[in-house]
Parts: sequence; structure tokens; C-alpha cells
Amino acid sequence: MPRDPQPTPFAWIDEAAAARRRAGLVRTLRPRPADSDLLDLAGNDYLGLSAHPEVTGAAAEAARRWGAGATGSRLVSGTTQLHAELEAELAAFTGFEAALVFSSGYAANLAAVTALTGRGSLVVSDAGNHASLIDGCRLSRAAVDVAPHADPEAVDKALTGHDGRTLVVTDAVFSVDGDTAPLPELAAVCRTHGAALLADDAHGLGVLGEGGRGTLHAAGLAGDPGVVATVTLSKSLGSQGGAVLGPAPVIEHLLNTARTFIFDTGLAPAAAAGALAALRLLAREPRRATRVRAVAEALHGGLTAAGFAPVRPQAAVVSVPAPTPGSAVRWAADCRDAGLAVGCFRPPSVPDGISRLRLTARADLTDGQVERAVTTVVRTAPASSR
Amino acid sequence: MPRDPQPTPFAWIDEAAAARRRAGLVRTLRPRPADSDLLDLAGNDYLGLSAHPEVTGAAAEAARRWGAGATGSRLVSGTTQLHAELEAELAAFTGFEAALVFSSGYAANLAAVTALTGRGSLVVSDAGNHASLIDGCRLSRAAVDVAPHADPEAVDKALTGHDGRTLVVTDAVFSVDGDTAPLPELAAVCRTHGAALLADDAHGLGVLGEGGRGTLHAAGLAGDPGVVATVTLSKSLGSQGGAVLGPAPVIEHLLNTARTFIFDTGLAPAAAAGALAALRLLAREPRRATRVRAVAEALHGGLTAAGFAPVRPQAAVVSVPAPTPGSAVRWAADCRDAGLAVGCFRPPSVPDGISRLRLTARADLTDGQVERAVTTVVRTAPASSR
Ligand SMILES: Cc1ncc(COP(=O)(O)O)c(C=O)c1O
Ligand SMILES: Cc1ncc(COP(=O)(O)O)c(C=O)c1O
Repeated sequence: MPRDPQPTPFAWIDEAAAARRRAGLVRTLRPRPADSDLLDLAGNDYLGLSAHPEVTGAAAEAARRWGAGATGSRLVSGTTQLHAELEAELAAFTGFEAALVFSSGYAANLAAVTALTGRGSLVVSDAGNHASLIDGCRLSRAAVDVAPHADPEAVDKALTGHDGRTLVVTDAVFSVDGDTAPLPELAAVCRTHGAALLADDAHGLGVLGEGGRGTLHAAGLAGDPGVVATVTLSKSLGSQGGAVLGPAPVIEHLLNTARTFIFDTGLAPAAAAGALAALRLLAREPRRATRVRAVAEALHGGLTAAGFAPVRPQAAVVSVPAPTPGSAVRWAADCRDAGLAVGCFRPPSVPDGISRLRLTARADLTDGQVERAVTTVVRTAPASSR
Repeated sequence: MPRDPQPTPFAWIDEAAAARRRAGLVRTLRPRPADSDLLDLAGNDYLGLSAHPEVTGAAAEAARRWGAGATGSRLVSGTTQLHAELEAELAAFTGFEAALVFSSGYAANLAAVTALTGRGSLVVSDAGNHASLIDGCRLSRAAVDVAPHADPEAVDKALTGHDGRTLVVTDAVFSVDGDTAPLPELAAVCRTHGAALLADDAHGLGVLGEGGRGTLHAAGLAGDPGVVATVTLSKSLGSQGGAVLGPAPVIEHLLNTARTFIFDTGLAPAAAAGALAALRLLAREPRRATRVRAVAEALHGGLTAAGFAPVRPQAAVVSVPAPTPGSAVRWAADCRDAGLAVGCFRPPSVPDGISRLRLTARADLTDGQVERAVTTVVRTAPASSR
């Protein structure tokens, strides 16, 4: 016997929204115009290549030549010669044997974690890891041990006594504070235990290592038979997409088993071509990687001299603690009013509950722009922030 | 005391590869040239818009104007005015109150399932659902009840007695066989139990409903206060990306909580612009949706007349059973040698273990091309397939 119809099933959503409003944690979208004159230290276009004419020209040309979409999954109709070229050149540049391109870095991370683990495996995951790695762990059906941040000894302990398949997972450069993982130590621990190492170099590619070859290359781990890396095409390469890099049999395995590869439409040709053009530009102009690190140092130096306590940047991210979530939001808004876009991270997007401004260095910033950015951040700072 | 170094941690991958080879289930990528002269009935470019000059022109123009990438997450720097326009027009076209665009349909599904559920919720998920919905269920931490395919009574039973938050999840058009879900019946069951309904219209948008407004519009469920839909921009709209459609507070909620929205780089401007141009084209030329259905009917009619037993198409997919996985692979390969690209689905990508060819109708196929496709499929068929 049918019962009476019920009220809308989404009433709980209104309560959640009210709670968010009370906590001052409402997020809003702010559509930007094409010709914004904000100084942008919020995005992750570290090398300033997203708007480079060679990159946008390649993307535009690819859309016209190959179509606006890939039309199907990579295994059906969605692999063009562009995708194959991009994979070969990404592997060669970063020093890995093979590469597989995904529609996003998020999808690449889900694929790598799930395809390299499974029921009965153990995953040891750094407490500061990116959401996409965490979601990969959740999807993996493996036992997941969350290790304290950047702590190889804790990883060693976690691996001891487990004799099934094991994977140690870490951001190579952590997305919030921009600090690097202790990769050589982690790799040594992994070797001792016969564990594999997966490092997400989303924020290291194009910034760290010789000519921007990445954090794994810098650590002598590119091409290591026990190491897999993921990268995004959406930050230093100024485009969209992601990739997994590793030994050829691992890439073969992903291609055959990773759900976010098999059941997802291939990356749009324009995005593949944009990333490929950016990669070639970087290979030709390695000083872009040097410049972005120098800009990060200059931002850090300026803020430190003014009495703030930003995290010392190991890559392109400069993180500045704020007293409270509310003051962080106001600080970022005041910067914006003064013509400077900065990121504002606060709960629940920060691992430790500490709100901060997140400034990103860009290789194409002039010294004058760096100075203006520092001055603006200092001038708009809340009273208790230094 | 450190132990001896271990052999490569990926030895198990070689064993998995050998098992795949023995089972004849090795997948390979086949990079295609830009000027392939294969007749393509494998991709999901249902309206033939991926290579339409208006669509590729808009994508190319957007890459030049807005850059090759979105540069950051949608909440930081990754929302352009293009994204906002696309969201407004998608919602208006499909008949929903609001829309939120993601970097892929896969990401949209992960977001919708996880943000609308959680620990203590119950998700009732159709056994034939797409991998991205299944992964959403796995990520959700909800109790998941897999219901028999297209069975509203089973869903009714599964919902009975649960009094927490509940979500019924289904493909609107199933990706493998192209059959539609019993949406009106499911919606009625949901109403009775106060449950929400989430339907993935990846294969219905542009094909079903008045002028291609989608399966939910056709069922009178677009804009229903208890219904949320997802779509992809990568099939009928010929581009890349995905979207969630629903009541404004639900979209607000996703924007504030969905991990694949908050922690993923925004969709590339070229992909957003391509999808937007395709949407406008479809709104102007509604007969494209009529034509793709007629092409699907013609494919079905031709194959049935030749003695095959294809599934009667309810949208643009025509599925033809094959005797074995091996014969399906050979059949598809023989079609390809004869100039026709068709999809080949086999374990583990099919829900029921039955391998099949998957032919997709396209609005831009001529009657002559449809005839040629049918003739080729018939001529290359394995002996025991009819
Ligand atoms: C460390 C890290 N990994 C992965 C991702 C996801 O990459 P994408 O945005 O290209 O999907 C991001 C950021 O978006 C990130 O910061
Ligand atoms: C039913 C269904 N939902 C979602 C998706 C994922 O969409 P996308 O490929 O745009 O990520 C697909 C196919 O790829 C699909 O067939």
C-alpha cells in the first residue's frame, strides 16, 4: 500500500548550508573576465605558459585539426597521435620509461593508487596528501595506514611486518604549504621492504629538478624500477589533464585495468596539444624553472623581512599563516580589492586546521610585480598576523 | 637492522600481464591520425558536433582568448565567464534550476554521489551502472545496495525500512546496451520513500527528449525538487567535461563540499567553449536529435533483417551480442580492416559477461553510410552470431 508522498529529500542540505553560513565558511564562484587586470598569484600556472602564444596556438590548432573532443575512451576512439606524442615526450623529459595521459591529474591519481593496490595490499599514505590520492586510497579497498607528515621512520614502522603488496604514497611537493617530501629516505625505506613508491609531482614538474624535470628527477628516482610518479598537465604545463609515469609494464597494467582510464573519455586534443607545446617550450627554455624558484624566494624574502612567517618555499608555493579563517578570508579579499589575487585556504581544505594565504610564484612575473605583491600582502595584513 | 634490498615490487604485474595474454584480454592503444578514413561507429560523438566548424572554432578561439588551461581550481582562479555561461545555458536547456561544470563526466558522477550521501546513508545502485557511479558509491562511505538491473520493485524493497538519508542511483541510458532506465517508476518509488533520485544522462543528452533535452526532460523529471542529473560534455556535445544539474541548493552544496570540484583544476576554456557552442547549435537545430535516433533505428533494422539480435535501441547505442570474447575481438578487427570502426566490449567491461559489438549512431551519417555499416558488420560476422 503506497504511503503519502514525502517532502523534498534535500531538506538536510538547507541545514548544512545554514551551518556553513554561521561558520563563515560559504564558498562562492567568482567568474573572471578574459582581460582581468588583477595580478594573479592565486593560480598554478607556474611557468606562465597557459597564455603563451605558442601554447594557446597549439591548443587552437589542435581543436580545429582533431576536433573539440576525443570522442570516446582512450581504448576505443579517444587516442590520437597527439596523445601518443605527448606520452612519449613526457616520459623522455621526466626520465621515466613510459607515460599514460588521463583527463585530469585527479583521474591519474585515482588510477595509480587503485591499479597498484587492491584487497590485501597495504597503502601507507602521508597525512598531508592531496584529496585525489586520499580518494584513490579510499577506492583501493586496500588497508590504508595514514603516516605522520614527511616521516620516513613512521613509514618504515608501518611497513614492518606486512608481507603482502605494499605501496607508499606521497605528494612530492605538498599542495598547501609547498614543502617537499623526503623522497630519497622514503625510497630507501621502500627498497628495504620491497614496497613500491608512488609520488605525485603535480607541483614539482616544471619547477624542481634540472630544467624543471621534476622532484623525482632531482632525487635520482626517475626511472627507478620501484617508483611511479603522477603529474598534472594543468599547472606548469598550463593546460588540463594528468599523467602517470613509470616502468613500461606498470603503464601497460594501468592501461588494462585502471577504471578512470578505461571508462573515461580521452583528454581533449586541444588540452593534449597545449601541454605538449608547453613541454617543448620548457625543454627549450630551462631557465623558466630557475626563474619560478627565484620568484618564490623573492616573495618569501620580502614577506620575511616584513615580519611575517611564511613557510620557506621548496618549490613555487609560498604559504602565509593567518590568525583565523575569517581573517584569512578578509585578508584575501583586501588583497583582491588592491589588485592582487591570492589563494585562501581554510578548513576543511587544510590538513591542520590553520588557515593561510597561498601565494604562487610565476616565472613570468617581473621583479616589480613581485615587489608590488609583497607590498600589497603586507599592507592588507590583519593586525595579529606577524 | 636494515634487511637486504628486495627485488622490484612490481613482479606481480608481470604475472597479471601473462594471465591477460593467456586469456586473450590484452588491450592496446591505437593512435589515430587526424585524417582517418575509417567510418566511425565507435565513438560517442552522437550529433557529429566534435568536428563541426562552429564547435572547433569556438574551442580554438577560447584557447587563444582565455588560455590553454583554467590555471586553478574553480574556487580559486579556474572559473571564467565562459564556465558561468555554460552552466546557465546547460541548466536552461535541460530544464533544471542550476548546473555545475566539472573537468569530466566521471568527476561529476563522483561528486554527485559522494556529496549527496555519506556515512549512515543508503545508496541503491542499479547493477548496470557506469563505473564512475560505482566508484562514487565506493567513495561515499554509505551503505550500498546493488539493485537488479532496471527493477523499480527491487528498489522499492531496498528502500523499505531505511529511515536515514537515501539516494537511488541509475544510468538514464545504460552505456553498454543503450537501454533506458524506468525513470518515472523509479521517481515514484523515490517519492514514496522520501529518497532522492540521481540519474546519469551521459548518453541521453542530445539524443532523447524534445530537441535532445535529455531523458529526464522526456520523463517530466527535469526540475523535480527530488531529482539530480549528471551529464557529460564529451559525447553529444563533442567536447570534454561533465556537469551536475539540479535544484540550486543542491548545486550550492556540491560547490561547497564535493572533493572532485574543490580539489580539481577547472575545465579548460577550450572545452567549455566547445561544449557551449555545441549546445547552442543543438538548441537551434533540434532535428539533430531526431536524426540520431533515426540512424540508430536504421542500424537496428538492417541488422535485424540480416538475422542478428541487436538490442532494440532506445537512444543512440546499438549493441550486438557476440558468441565469445575472442570472436568479438576478431569481428571488430575484421570490421576495421573493412573500413568500419566499431566498439568491442568484453569482460571485465560488461556487466553480464556477454561480449558484444557496440555501434553508435551519429546524426551526421548518411543513409548510404548506415547501409555500408550494416553490410560490413553482416559480412564480417562470426558463423554462430545469428
Ligand atoms: C598535489 C595535487 N595532485 C593532483 C591534483 C589534481 O590535478 P588536476 O587539477 O590536474 O586534476 C592537484 C591539484 O589540482 C594537486 O595539487
Ligand atoms: C554513463 C556514463 N557516465 C559517465 C561517463 C563519464 O563521462 P566522461 O567520459 O565525460 O568522463 C561515461 C563515459 O565515459 C558514461 O558512459
